[in-house]
Amino acid sequence: MVEVVTFGEAMLRLSPPADGRLETTPQFDVTVGGSESNVAALASRLGRDAIWLSKLPDDPLGRRVAGQLRRDGVEPVVCWSDEGRVGTYYLESGDPPRGTDVVYDRAGSAVTTVQPGDLDTETVESAEVFHTSGITPALSDATAQTTAQLLSIASQSGTTVSFDLNYRSKLWSHAEARDTLEPLLADVDLLFAPRRDTESILGIDAAAQEMARHLAGTYGIETVVVTMGGDGALALHEGECYEQSVYPASDRRPIGTGDAFVGGFLAALVETDDLDTALSWGAAAAALKRSIPGDIATITPDEVREVIDGATPDISR
Amino acid sequence: MVEVVTFGEAMLRLSPPADGRLETTPQFDVTVGGSESNVAALASRLGRDAIWLSKLPDDPLGRRVAGQLRRDGVEPVVCWSDEGRVGTYYLESGDPPRGTDVVYDRAGSAVTTVQPGDLDTETVESAEVFHTSGITPALSDATAQTTAQLLSIASQSGTTVSFDLNYRSKLWSHAEARDTLEPLLADVDLLFAPRRDTESILGIDAAAQEMARHLAGTYGIETVVVTMGGDGALALHEGECYEQSVYPASDRRPIGTGDAFVGGFLAALVETDDLDTALSWGAAAAALKRSIPGDIATITPDEVREVIDGATPDISR
Amino acid sequence: MVEVVTFGEAMLRLSPPADGRLETTPQFDVTVGGSESNVAALASRLGRDAIWLSKLPDDPLGRRVAGQLRRDGVEPVVCWSDEGRVGTYYLESGDPPRGTDVVYDRAGSAVTTVQPGDLDTETVESAEVFHTSGITPALSDATAQTTAQLLSIASQSGTTVSFDLNYRSKLWSHAEARDTLEPLLADVDLLFAPRRDTESILGIDAAAQEMARHLAGTYGIETVVVTMGGDGALALHEGECYEQSVYPASDRRPIGTGDAFVGGFLAALVETDDLDTALSWGAAAAALKRSIPGDIATITPDEVREVIDGATPDISR
Amino acid sequence: MVEVVTFGEAMLRLSPPADGRLETTPQFDVTVGGSESNVAALASRLGRDAIWLSKLPDDPLGRRVAGQLRRDGVEPVVCWSDEGRVGTYYLESGDPPRGTDVVYDRAGSAVTTVQPGDLDTETVESAEVFHTSGITPALSDATAQTTAQLLSIASQSGTTVSFDLNYRSKLWSHAEARDTLEPLLADVDLLFAPRRDTESILGIDAAAQEMARHLAGTYGIETVVVTMGGDGALALHEGECYEQSVYPASDRRPIGTGDAFVGGFLAALVETDDLDTALSWGAAAAALKRSIPGDIATITPDEVREVIDGATPDISR
Amino acid sequence: MVEVVTFGEAMLRLSPPADGRLETTPQFDVTVGGSESNVAALASRLGRDAIWLSKLPDDPLGRRVAGQLRRDGVEPVVCWSDEGRVGTYYLESGDPPRGTDVVYDRAGSAVTTVQPGDLDTETVESAEVFHTSGITPALSDATAQTTAQLLSIASQSGTTVSFDLNYRSKLWSHAEARDTLEPLLADVDLLFAPRRDTESILGIDAAAQEMARHLAGTYGIETVVVTMGGDGALALHEGECYEQSVYPASDRRPIGTGDAFVGGFLAALVETDDLDTALSWGAAAAALKRSIPGDIATITPDEVREVIDGATPDISR
Amino acid sequence: MVEVVTFGEAMLRLSPPADGRLETTPQFDVTVGGSESNVAALASRLGRDAIWLSKLPDDPLGRRVAGQLRRDGVEPVVCWSDEGRVGTYYLESGDPPRGTDVVYDRAGSAVTTVQPGDLDTETVESAEVFHTSGITPALSDATAQTTAQLLSIASQSGTTVSFDLNYRSKLWSHAEARDTLEPLLADVDLLFAPRRDTESILGIDAAAQEMARHLAGTYGIETVVVTMGGDGALALHEGECYEQSVYPASDRRPIGTGDAFVGGFLAALVETDDLDTALSWGAAAAALKRSIPGDIATITPDEVREVIDGATPDISR
Ligand SMILES: [Ca+2]
Ligand SMILES: [Ca+2]
Ligand SMILES: [Ca+2]
Ligand SMILES: [Ca+2]
Ligand SMILES: [Ca+2]
Ligand SMILES: [Ca+2]
Ligand SMILES: [Ca+2]
Ligand SMILES: [Ca+2]
Ligand SMILES: [Ca+2]
Ligand SMILES: [Ca+2]
Ligand SMILES: [Ca+2]
Ligand SMILES: [Ca+2]
Ligand code: NI
Ligand code: NI
Ligand code: NI
Ligand code: NI
Ligand code: NI
Ligand code: NI
Ligand code: NI
Ligand code: NI
Ligand code: NI
Ligand code: NI
Ligand code: NI
Ligand code: NI
Ligand code: NI
Ligand code: NI
Ligand code: NI
Ligand code: NI
Ligand code: NI
Ligand code: NI
Repeated sequence: MVEVVTFGEAMLRLSPPADGRLETTPQFDVTVGGSESNVAALASRLGRDAIWLSKLPDDPLGRRVAGQLRRDGVEPVVCWSDEGRVGTYYLESGDPPRGTDVVYDRAGSAVTTVQPGDLDTETVESAEVFHTSGITPALSDATAQTTAQLLSIASQSGTTVSFDLNYRSKLWSHAEARDTLEPLLADVDLLFAPRRDTESILGIDAAAQEMARHLAGTYGIETVVVTMGGDGALALHEGECYEQSVYPASDRRPIGTGDAFVGGFLAALVETDDLDTALSWGAAAAALKRSIPGDIATITPDEVREVIDGATPDISR
Repeated sequence: MVEVVTFGEAMLRLSPPADGRLETTPQFDVTVGGSESNVAALASRLGRDAIWLSKLPDDPLGRRVAGQLRRDGVEPVVCWSDEGRVGTYYLESGDPPRGTDVVYDRAGSAVTTVQPGDLDTETVESAEVFHTSGITPALSDATAQTTAQLLSIASQSGTTVSFDLNYRSKLWSHAEARDTLEPLLADVDLLFAPRRDTESILGIDAAAQEMARHLAGTYGIETVVVTMGGDGALALHEGECYEQSVYPASDRRPIGTGDAFVGGFLAALVETDDLDTALSWGAAAAALKRSIPGDIATITPDEVREVIDGATPDISR
Repeated sequence: MVEVVTFGEAMLRLSPPADGRLETTPQFDVTVGGSESNVAALASRLGRDAIWLSKLPDDPLGRRVAGQLRRDGVEPVVCWSDEGRVGTYYLESGDPPRGTDVVYDRAGSAVTTVQPGDLDTETVESAEVFHTSGITPALSDATAQTTAQLLSIASQSGTTVSFDLNYRSKLWSHAEARDTLEPLLADVDLLFAPRRDTESILGIDAAAQEMARHLAGTYGIETVVVTMGGDGALALHEGECYEQSVYPASDRRPIGTGDAFVGGFLAALVETDDLDTALSWGAAAAALKRSIPGDIATITPDEVREVIDGATPDISR
Repeated sequence: MVEVVTFGEAMLRLSPPADGRLETTPQFDVTVGGSESNVAALASRLGRDAIWLSKLPDDPLGRRVAGQLRRDGVEPVVCWSDEGRVGTYYLESGDPPRGTDVVYDRAGSAVTTVQPGDLDTETVESAEVFHTSGITPALSDATAQTTAQLLSIASQSGTTVSFDLNYRSKLWSHAEARDTLEPLLADVDLLFAPRRDTESILGIDAAAQEMARHLAGTYGIETVVVTMGGDGALALHEGECYEQSVYPASDRRPIGTGDAFVGGFLAALVETDDLDTALSWGAAAAALKRSIPGDIATITPDEVREVIDGATPDISR
Repeated sequence: MVEVVTFGEAMLRLSPPADGRLETTPQFDVTVGGSESNVAALASRLGRDAIWLSKLPDDPLGRRVAGQLRRDGVEPVVCWSDEGRVGTYYLESGDPPRGTDVVYDRAGSAVTTVQPGDLDTETVESAEVFHTSGITPALSDATAQTTAQLLSIASQSGTTVSFDLNYRSKLWSHAEARDTLEPLLADVDLLFAPRRDTESILGIDAAAQEMARHLAGTYGIETVVVTMGGDGALALHEGECYEQSVYPASDRRPIGTGDAFVGGFLAALVETDDLDTALSWGAAAAALKRSIPGDIATITPDEVREVIDGATPDISR
Repeated sequence: MVEVVTFGEAMLRLSPPADGRLETTPQFDVTVGGSESNVAALASRLGRDAIWLSKLPDDPLGRRVAGQLRRDGVEPVVCWSDEGRVGTYYLESGDPPRGTDVVYDRAGSAVTTVQPGDLDTETVESAEVFHTSGITPALSDATAQTTAQLLSIASQSGTTVSFDLNYRSKLWSHAEARDTLEPLLADVDLLFAPRRDTESILGIDAAAQEMARHLAGTYGIETVVVTMGGDGALALHEGECYEQSVYPASDRRPIGTGDAFVGGFLAALVETDDLDTALSWGAAAAALKRSIPGDIATITPDEVREVIDGATPDISR
């Protein structure tokens, strides 16, 4: 029985080295990123069995995506397609006042035509946790319908259904997101709800604890985790609240922070079934991610423990 | 009055440094390439006024394409669009037995929705030469129709209409190419006909001179240039044949050779109206291109003359 | 009628990647920089027509300089010379306590022999704004005399004459600068006066507003802009004072900040004729520049507006 | 039942980019290489299930080795150790008259203390093919004894025992190699015998076919493959001879050629049980490897087939 | 008479560019580092004659180490060996909460077998200062014994004996360090005692001044310098105390800070025999080092003076 | 007594990586090169004591030049100047039909003002061999006069005077070279005479042996070495002729071949006083150089011997 199964798109990420600009850089650093594959990769690195479900073109770039995830210990269970492309995204970042800019170039990727029959749904049924995020149904009608069906399958199989709202303004509007995501929440057992997304999509404007109660009540969700950027996170489970502040971290590589939180949280939850532990592993993984190039938190359990224990020395030699 | 106007797509070209593989390279070298923009860039570098017509998204990558062409002296007259993407192509090359592999990722690019009204057709009317290639109509119905219309406008304006068959098997079948291209040839004054494409698309299987006569006769084309790879090129004009062998060159960077030939040929033809000169400039530019990274022949008139004169020293110091 | 014409030297800038040292770096990053070409490039990027006047050797490095400026949309109107070199400058920067060190290697560059007859002075006559800086007359007697003549031509043509004091201690002494620059100020309509340079060269030691009044009065300058580093800037026009604070920005790439201020200011001034707008565009462009490698502010109008509006998100996706 | 299991050491390979020298290069390219892991990686890439057995230190470099092999589809079944290091080797290559120079720095690596009990010997028992090479027993007494024991286990389990003589003069003398390797040959079913090694170690100086018969007869080996560098290869099985010439290939990246031959051969043999097919896949994989940076032949079945069919186009687009 | 002689190991330092991870970086930056060679290099750069004594393998990597030190002006007096390797160390650093991680891979290096007879001990006898650190005796019994003997030779020759405790937890335990280092202190004239090491190894837990007195008294050391990281340093000599705060500096490149302090201190001490000057040169060199990649402080006397004078401009041009 | 002293200019060499063009490359590789420093560096690497005399600016680039030569074992005896620059040269190379192009940017370098009094002429008097080349007197009147004086000093001291004609068409005309060099030859004991230069400058058009006799007779030179590119070299000494063919080598890095020949020749001559040995070491060093990036032949005596013995294996492991 596999511990964590995720479903979503992984893209090539192309980013200029050394704070260069997309318009002028002579080279791109190439990595692989995608919210749900980032989660699977981290869960695997932290000791969980992890499978990632998706659809990729049978070409060197598709093989690259799968190979990268295998390197991080994930088993990619992929529908290899003769149609469609590997989605790409261009990432540019720089010191303030420049922020981190993403140019999505993901239309027409192979996963946008995915059908439930393309995927090994038995892995979903036998998983301890099935996870996906609001990005996946935003990609196409096909991904939206397949997401709904996988959530339903997972829910009926006793698999814990984990979902991250993960709103992306470059993919859809607030209204489109709400219309698609709200029906899905019925099947969700564990919701990661970024405070900002909860406000903008679901229209819930409240303090974090109240927000969590509102979400749990309205949609009947067993565990709600509200994430609040620099203000930490809060979990609500059976009426009880668990709080977590952030660990001090760099601001230079914010992409993937949320996925690292989810990956660390799930890895610890599956192992310990303890929300305090899950929150601290999520927060520590998120902090570490902010020091690491790429989308994926290429970290170890020991490093997570050092952050939680406040035991990372300046120099270790 | 502008000397050379071309129309087509320019893409980002992403290629692994140092013979790396697409599947594993940590970085891509980024350049800009496209058959018709390559031609315009070289014509400009060799002293001609050159305009490139196209449609690009109004984003950093679109600006990159335009900026790169300006650097080579081309004036990009672009329809800036809120829709569509910059097409990309991945290029991998290596020593034998690996060849040069192209993975096109150009579906959905902004130019695929181009309409004649998007473009500054007055530049076509006032040009000495208007050039495009068989790649452009292969991209979409819209590019096919726009190509036809621009060829017609040029033809009616007394602009010399130049066309390169430029068959790409990853874009369409032989039959599709023939069905689309044959009607266009009626407007063509100067045809670049790669021998292999002439055989496979137009079904003309003959020696080069016979092939040229066949093309000139069947389609009523004033000047036909048959290119034969390592076997050189041959021009036919008013029944007279002009021959050109290749200049010795490297095999390591073949992409863009054909475009360099066309660019060198057109640059010399506009200046001298002499087919022998045009052929030698085409051949010399093509030879030089094979030593230069990227799609564009970043060369100078002096370098072309040195190749023609056989005067390039081993070391110049 | 062209909007902005600048005159000066552009150099190759050679800088070690990744905080390396000139003494040991195995590679140099190569860009193009020069105060007046930086101004022209930014003005062009922000939507103005811009011409840069200079003299360059007819070799690959001279072509590189011109090509780089074309890429940013500037039309380089260059006297191509068989004598002289492309000036270079070596730039090394690092975290504190290292600062940003410049080793100039610009003696004998082609522009040091420039004569008014080498340049297309009609562009100066027809420009809305003509801009140069105190660096240009510091280069040689010839550049000093040509600068004086161009300022005179511009002044007599009704072109707005813009000048940045731009003192460089590695080029000349305070006394030399004063002796050369003071006579030029008679032709200046718009003066950019860094507070430190105003003190050290012109001997005016006063608060900024008083300094501006002093400059305006003494030299009969219509508009004086005193720039004060981290303390912002102040413009004085027809007795009225306009103030501008700095936008928060990085300290890591200070070179080019002043030029970005001038470029942003001029671009906005030509468009709006409004000093408040010009100051805010100058300040925002300067802030953005500090996050961007190279001398030139490769930014867009939208980015400037986002900084002014305080609307740059941490992550835009 | 797993198809291919290999046992050996994989090292970090550190090599100067762009023909630099170990003594002066500012950077090393880092890859992972080792004869038996190279074989496993290629077998996996060509479609076989593949496991690699070894011992590695539990540190970032050990994880790197395992991750790299997972990327190529191999399952590394590793004894993670608190003692020992990851072996490294420095590789320098250049045009003639420089050759390819290896500086081994592999003493004290974790695998040198490996015991049979450290390894999952059940995978050996259940494998179709177990493969190792003469490098492994050369590393230490422990690896020699463990190699002997694994060969014995494999032999008794009906697993096909594959062995490559793979003599390395920087690891041991001819005499040491002979004394250690000869006893192992009793358990070998499929021997890869480089002609030069067969002469120098085993003292068999004969034409290839005679050499193969001699090896098969003396050591009772069912299938002997004599490899002859540029002269191709020859297999002997049940008295019948199968010959294979080399496919034209580059000389620039010779390291890993032999491993690619073995990997291609085994991948095809397991699938087809046909020696002609195995030889052609071995030869084609070896030819392709010579165009690819790194130790591992990162190729696809389609590319192998194209080489065998002589169907690789110069440019595929 | 040579001014400064040091003895110790210098290693290849391999570190991922751009905050990459050892587990995944495609390249390593290669430099040379070692506490005592870092000291010699800086002393030489600041104007002292400097010799470094060690043992290296006669291979490209050994030559690299010697060549690098020559570049910085050190004369490496090396025993070239056919046995042993060049030690390496892997350095990974990143923004918080990642720290700076060192993976030592130095076991079996050539210096671990060094005997006094391998070294040119006459240079020690004739030196003004002989310096080594607690790292050297930690490497092997042979280095411990050779260190003891060189200290004794130096002491008996009237050479000032300088020693840095320099505890490395990855090399030995506190107890082992104490047992080995305490007997050596009898020969030491000038002790650099990091506060943390003094506590953990020698068990002296006191305020800095008291700690210095304790060390001077217990071990009969003429001059004791207690270094306290961000809290500065303190020297005790003939009962008098000299204090030094730190100069503001970056946190990004901490490795080598201590060696830069020692190198700057010794360079100034030999020249001026003034402890205040020595402390300020040590502190300034340490601050500058923190902005410079690599182990060695590649700085100049002028830069040290600028830091001490607080005269480093933001931009020098 | 030092074995080899050379005098000349060493420059920064800036070259685009990977066959890029000067006009467009984003980076330059930086090395140090100059004919006479190349010779000194190789002589040192092959075991001779070597000193290089020159004048450099006291800045990071001047220190870089000296440090690079120290790394190769040369002792740079430099006049550090507050005036003048480090000369640079831009090197671009590519596959045919592109050749190797040099853009000199060396005017105004510090050495162009060198006076004999700037240099440590005692090293010349005490040297076994003093070497310079025709490049040095081509740089300025001052270098011409200083060269003449050093040759005279060497000649009068019994130092063997070695001279390489080394004509550079970008520095002076044939006539200028002849007028300056002919008078110098009176002091020369050992002349390296490239066949082409001998023809073009000295007007001697003859077969190599006749050319050597002519040079020896006309100018009274004890030993004449005529070098003939791919046709090898020939030495004439006391009427006897010694011939040497070239060793097979790459064509890709021709710069520095001549200097490597001279350096290898001198290193062997000083050691063995045997012309056959000197010629073979010269030829082998030249062949090896053609595989090595940069101006300097970073090779070892063992590698030279391997080439001479034809013993370089394809792979050494
Ligand atoms: Ca993400
Ligand atoms: Ca932004
Ligand atoms: Ca291929
Ligand atoms: Ca093309
Ligand atoms: Ca500037
Ligand atoms: Ca400084
Ligand atoms: Ca191998
Ligand atoms: Ca250190
Ligand atoms: Ca750590
Ligand atoms: Ca040279
Ligand atoms: Ca050339
Ligand atoms: Ca060798
Ligand atoms: Ni943005
Ligand atoms: Ni991410
Ligand atoms: Ni990220
Ligand atoms: Ni292909
Ligand atoms: Ni092309
Ligand atoms: Ni190309
Ligand atoms: Ni500075
Ligand atoms: Ni600047
Ligand atoms: Ni800048
Ligand atoms: Ni070798
Ligand atoms: Ni290999
Ligand atoms: Ni290899
Ligand atoms: Ni360090
Ligand atoms: Ni250190
Ligand atoms: Ni360091
Ligand atoms: Ni050279
Ligand atoms: Ni060279
Ligand atoms: Ni060279």
